[in-house]
Amino acid sequence: MAGNTFGKIFRITTWGESHGKALGVVVDGVPAGLPVSEADIQAFLDRRKPGASRFSTPRKEADAVQILSGVFEGKTTGTPISLLIPNTSQRSADYSEIASYYRPGHADYTFDQKYGFRDYRGGGRSSGRETAGRVAAGAVASLFLDRLGIRVCAYTKSIGPVFCERFCEEEIRNNPLCMPDAQAACRAEAYLEECMERQDSSGGVVECFADGVPAGLGDPVFDKLDAALAGAVMSIGAVKAVEIGDGTSVSRARGSENNDPFRMRNGHVEKETNHAGGILGGISDGSRILLRAHIKPTPSIFSEQQTVNRDGEDITIRIKGRHDPVIVPRAVVVVEAMTALVLADALLSNMGARLDRIREFYRR
Amino acid sequence: MAGNTFGKIFRITTWGESHGKALGVVVDGVPAGLPVSEADIQAFLDRRKPGASRFSTPRKEADAVQILSGVFEGKTTGTPISLLIPNTSQRSADYSEIASYYRPGHADYTFDQKYGFRDYRGGGRSSGRETAGRVAAGAVASLFLDRLGIRVCAYTKSIGPVFCERFCEEEIRNNPLCMPDAQAACRAEAYLEECMERQDSSGGVVECFADGVPAGLGDPVFDKLDAALAGAVMSIGAVKAVEIGDGTSVSRARGSENNDPFRMRNGHVEKETNHAGGILGGISDGSRILLRAHIKPTPSIFSEQQTVNRDGEDITIRIKGRHDPVIVPRAVVVVEAMTALVLADALLSNMGARLDRIREFYRR
Amino acid sequence: MAGNTFGKIFRITTWGESHGKALGVVVDGVPAGLPVSEADIQAFLDRRKPGASRFSTPRKEADAVQILSGVFEGKTTGTPISLLIPNTSQRSADYSEIASYYRPGHADYTFDQKYGFRDYRGGGRSSGRETAGRVAAGAVASLFLDRLGIRVCAYTKSIGPVFCERFCEEEIRNNPLCMPDAQAACRAEAYLEECMERQDSSGGVVECFADGVPAGLGDPVFDKLDAALAGAVMSIGAVKAVEIGDGTSVSRARGSENNDPFRMRNGHVEKETNHAGGILGGISDGSRILLRAHIKPTPSIFSEQQTVNRDGEDITIRIKGRHDPVIVPRAVVVVEAMTALVLADALLSNMGARLDRIREFYRR
Amino acid sequence: MAGNTFGKIFRITTWGESHGKALGVVVDGVPAGLPVSEADIQAFLDRRKPGASRFSTPRKEADAVQILSGVFEGKTTGTPISLLIPNTSQRSADYSEIASYYRPGHADYTFDQKYGFRDYRGGGRSSGRETAGRVAAGAVASLFLDRLGIRVCAYTKSIGPVFCERFCEEEIRNNPLCMPDAQAACRAEAYLEECMERQDSSGGVVECFADGVPAGLGDPVFDKLDAALAGAVMSIGAVKAVEIGDGTSVSRARGSENNDPFRMRNGHVEKETNHAGGILGGISDGSRILLRAHIKPTPSIFSEQQTVNRDGEDITIRIKGRHDPVIVPRAVVVVEAMTALVLADALLSNMGARLDRIREFYRR
Repeated sequence: MAGNTFGKIFRITTWGESHGKALGVVVDGVPAGLPVSEADIQAFLDRRKPGASRFSTPRKEADAVQILSGVFEGKTTGTPISLLIPNTSQRSADYSEIASYYRPGHADYTFDQKYGFRDYRGGGRSSGRETAGRVAAGAVASLFLDRLGIRVCAYTKSIGPVFCERFCEEEIRNNPLCMPDAQAACRAEAYLEECMERQDSSGGVVECFADGVPAGLGDPVFDKLDAALAGAVMSIGAVKAVEIGDGTSVSRARGSENNDPFRMRNGHVEKETNHAGGILGGISDGSRILLRAHIKPTPSIFSEQQTVNRDGEDITIRIKGRHDPVIVPRAVVVVEAMTALVLADALLSNMGARLDRIREFYRR
Repeated sequence: MAGNTFGKIFRITTWGESHGKALGVVVDGVPAGLPVSEADIQAFLDRRKPGASRFSTPRKEADAVQILSGVFEGKTTGTPISLLIPNTSQRSADYSEIASYYRPGHADYTFDQKYGFRDYRGGGRSSGRETAGRVAAGAVASLFLDRLGIRVCAYTKSIGPVFCERFCEEEIRNNPLCMPDAQAACRAEAYLEECMERQDSSGGVVECFADGVPAGLGDPVFDKLDAALAGAVMSIGAVKAVEIGDGTSVSRARGSENNDPFRMRNGHVEKETNHAGGILGGISDGSRILLRAHIKPTPSIFSEQQTVNRDGEDITIRIKGRHDPVIVPRAVVVVEAMTALVLADALLSNMGARLDRIREFYRR
Repeated sequence: MAGNTFGKIFRITTWGESHGKALGVVVDGVPAGLPVSEADIQAFLDRRKPGASRFSTPRKEADAVQILSGVFEGKTTGTPISLLIPNTSQRSADYSEIASYYRPGHADYTFDQKYGFRDYRGGGRSSGRETAGRVAAGAVASLFLDRLGIRVCAYTKSIGPVFCERFCEEEIRNNPLCMPDAQAACRAEAYLEECMERQDSSGGVVECFADGVPAGLGDPVFDKLDAALAGAVMSIGAVKAVEIGDGTSVSRARGSENNDPFRMRNGHVEKETNHAGGILGGISDGSRILLRAHIKPTPSIFSEQQTVNRDGEDITIRIKGRHDPVIVPRAVVVVEAMTALVLADALLSNMGARLDRIREFYRR
Repeated sequence: MAGNTFGKIFRITTWGESHGKALGVVVDGVPAGLPVSEADIQAFLDRRKPGASRFSTPRKEADAVQILSGVFEGKTTGTPISLLIPNTSQRSADYSEIASYYRPGHADYTFDQKYGFRDYRGGGRSSGRETAGRVAAGAVASLFLDRLGIRVCAYTKSIGPVFCERFCEEEIRNNPLCMPDAQAACRAEAYLEECMERQDSSGGVVECFADGVPAGLGDPVFDKLDAALAGAVMSIGAVKAVEIGDGTSVSRARGSENNDPFRMRNGHVEKETNHAGGILGGISDGSRILLRAHIKPTPSIFSEQQTVNRDGEDITIRIKGRHDPVIVPRAVVVVEAMTALVLADALLSNMGARLDRIREFYRR
């Protein structure tokens, strides 16, 4: 119940703290025969890596992944894939002070309440570094989805008050903020500069879509595809809201506006609009899956804050160390990873839904 | 993987279709010794019952619950509690027509894609009646929480463009829309009347809080308390977005605004504000848990719609039958139930977090 | 964790006590499109029904099953199948006395220790009646297996010192002891008569095989097919040992005797012998699956016994009521049901093992 | 569903192949505050290590464990503990030949059937080396149990036809066969010498007990404590039968012999005998838990065997490489580990059984 395992069939277990020896993940339930290399996974990790821009913590980590098991002659064997990422830049000294007090907006207080004490070095398990294992596993999920013609793509939709107004997919990897709109990226950079000058931080929104998802994924009651996505994305630290399709705006819409009419096109059933974000009754409908994650501003700000210490005294603090003024750009690949993991699991889970297809499967 | 089970320790399995013989739920993992009666559960079901106002389907269902097992001499025994709710008002004739086509905004198309065919009577398992089992189970969870001093309370926050501007808890059960603001309820009723005249429907927002939740519930990675709540609430049909605490607005906030300072009060650690909605790092912090669910407008509208039939032809339809112009008021108790179920599960799950407390537990 | 759910994909949740209103089971994860009727399930329940012979409790229960959900127009819909079996012959008066003391060999003491009190009527949830739900669910699993060419067959291998020496499948249903050897059945009946005269009871062995199981089911580490079978069969009350293939005798064998040589026959790989019971490395090898369950003598004997009461006094008791002098014959269909459930689950679980087959599945 | 995770609350995920870079395990759900060191775990691994005697494979492996996460300042933090054991002596060359054929009694054929191909080096994931992760995790479970006054002890009960006739606990670690009877150990050594001369191998029995287990662990239906133990122990490669208490002999016993009378002793309820092996109705009764695992002879024998190759031809083979003539002594600590893991999980799972104790727990 300690909750470091995610997924039912395509299933990952992450481990590791910010300042431990290493972080990692065991990916279980990956079908046999999938080509996977360290380079494939590294490409995803590099997108999450700190130190990529002036808006990201200057901590330098190579985040170099090692495959320790489950791959033989370049292909998955159906046995668990153990991925390990050594920690190389642990400057624990920076953190010794925070052992004694509770940083606002952080998990310091709640960890102490739950466990009686905490690994205070860099936030321990509650650090953003925890997501390295998710991204490594998400890379494997993405390789699997790719073989089935499914593509997942995430990007920054907004930073503070600055929203993207156009979508150019190539642009996403051109700017340090992962925005698909170069002009918005410029404005967002200016906004972040101002935040940094004020020793403050900014939130933002990550949007993610998946194309090529077949109709039929997800289950109609508790394991709705949107429920699984919401739980997965909300489990990323700092996410405070999740929207599917039109999301929050449905509450102000009328049925006649919100319903997506069906129509035939080229012999296939399609929807004219996609307010639903590709999911009806918890099951994928064959159109684009669309979701958004709202991410809070980095709680580690350098301006003065009120808080209490472990001795129960009111104190005033100034946080030191290395912190991102915004975590949104680094969260992009994490949202993409979690989405890929949910879809991989749903694909496998769906295979037992119909007797006729099971019989065909075993007739071989 | 068919997903009709929810929870890990406090665990429910629901079953039943809109027009089958009955609906029900098996509640497993309820601690022994909890007083539970049919009347206790009925009180929750009555809040969900159709036909309560002119804004709810005129279908009449007593929704009378029977306890079939797991309770002996008025108390739970630790064995599974089977709750059964007979269906009494199945007018399947109304639905025979919809067997042949796909209603926009409904799960008709996706069920056919997943399973090859569907129980089309009243939406079958995808009907809102599916939530009766959730509410019955949520009643048991609420009785359990009550014994631990935890209280969950949900209400309508907005209907279409009409938002509550004040909070009077007593008012929630005074108006058919379950709004804690009598004046907003009047305006919302007027808005709904207009929707009905236009043969249209409305969405809205349900807000829910929980008081008395001890610090320490939830787990720091995939099983964050907010992740569990988000998955639980998004699994309710028609919910398209979930917010925790300040929710979507955090993405536009700065860290200095969004962080909740800690302070001492009467020897206890408290937060001055609660932007976080009572959860830090996925773990409850002892303050009020707060969430919001955005609910889409009822897809069954009486105006003309475009769609396709099972033969792959474009057609125009007008939906008949009995449908709520807004489902928000009836969803209130469902959101409350899912929240109670998540908290009950988290309470039990948390008991194994610390060696010192386990030793004390078994020292008895 | 209360453990009334079994299986991962093909998944059942049972409920009900010996003297409650009813017993039942929710069968989730059954593929859509499987023809299932009440009569199909009743045929299995009738094999477990009490009162079938003089070696079985005279309690009369019709054990008439009702399908409450999940079947539409005679076929499963992919949604949960709720099966209910009313209790009709609860003579609780018989049991009031046992509320005060702990019957040797029963769960009275351990229930009180775990839950603080117990539903003492007929053993409550620890009664053999609990297996009615397993058998009803096992019937559905068997119908599913049948569509895939898999047949499960269980029978009494021995009663006390009397062992079957030949195997005639037709004979199994010809004698009240479910033995495939008519002569052994006669000798066993005589042995049981003698037990009953002595106010004593007898144990025995149930054997079960499955034919037509494809190679590849089961997973290599914790979810070995034999581990799943052992857990499933040991979860039947009164089972104290489980053997796979040659079972206990392997511990005295040499490798040269115990290994099953492979050979080609008609273009297929076969084994010359089957000491392994159809499972190698936890995975089915395509030959017959074979297991045995060792069942203890009924603990409810009518002779005088020593025990203690709830007040902590040593006492002497004589158990009254209705009890089987041997439970082995009624356990036969329960072992068959649990085996069928494990195989159904393993079949569905195995579908995601290979990328090539998944791609083929979704190419449709 | 790939089944490399075991346990529900105290939960382990193992990974690694015989000839990969390393093996390991992630132990999740360990309560915070438990002192754990590499030396503590190493002591368990050393008992499993190959090369300890002439009856064990001469492969040399240090099996030196590293703690990579989850332990801070010598104590568990409540976050996942990642344990890694590098492989140092992979002589894959020995195994290249077996890529082309199926060794009798091994998982070669079934892996190929399930996954389409296999990591043939040393048996890959089906190697006995897979158990290293179990033992490392079992060490952590044992440390936890120790804090609660529970002690688990396993030993060799028999090798081939040679049975222990006395029990001297100190003797277990004095002889290479882990037998608690020095004279039986001598006879067993002689028997094994003879097996080795004949290029053959031997099976045997491991017995395991647990003292200090409180009454109340285990759940009454599918998650009976004995069912969990049977599944756990049967999941160890080469185990073909599991017995609880009197095990297989109950099938020949009468009720009057098999029932354990209760009696008062020093104000506590006790049983006069323990045929039940410490479990009644699936729940621990406070007396000694006792089980036995029957282990087949090592399938890798050096004498000539018949089999088939991947091209579907009948062939004759002689297995080369490094193999134990008996695996029983090395399986002893594996059985102990699995038993400890089941008990640790049952202890945590049981904490939510009673409302009165939950209220007391949270009253703090």
